[in-house]
Amino acid sequence: QSGAASWYGSGHQTANGERFNPNGMTAAHRSLPFGTRVRVENKQTGRSVVVRINDRGPFVRGRIIDLSRGSARALGMGGTSYVSLHVVD
Amino acid sequence: QSGAASWYGSGHQTANGERFNPNGMTAAHRSLPFGTRVRVENKQTGRSVVVRINDRGPFVRGRIIDLSRGSARALGMGGTSYVSLHVVD
Repeated sequence: QSGAASWYGSGHQTANGERFNPNGMTAAHRSLPFGTRVRVENKQTGRSVVVRINDRGPFVRGRIIDLSRGSARALGMGGTSYVSLHVVD
Repeated sequence: QSGAASWYGSGHQTANGERFNPNGMTAAHRSLPFGTRVRVENKQTGRSVVVRINDRGPFVRGRIIDLSRGSARALGMGGTSYVSLHVVD
């Protein structure tokens, strides 16, 4: 299965009743049983990581998996950007 | 003020009591008054956007603002990656 992955870093409880750990190596998938371990390969960075499915989602057409922040970081996705702030009068 | 910006896409209620809208042009800042409008410039992409402070954070050392997903997208931050999935036996 190939497609777009997104990631999320907030949340209280996962669909299988765990407390959500943003730094854990977990992910949300629409149909795979909870506890399934899945190797996710980032086609852009070539990195791969094994995640455990503990949540349901993503509920957005065209996306196949929603990774925890920790999983996404391990794959070299997203992160922070350097910005400057100016209050608008 | 310059530094690292992160972004978040989940949450129920912001610190000023609004319902969190991941697609809104809002952000969390540690000290600016709620309602302040701030121009955020992404030094990496050169894009800038005006956001409204409606939440408190980020509570991570070294970060100066936590943007809503919509604000981050407008700045060309993060997004999705193309991946492939393989269930691990």
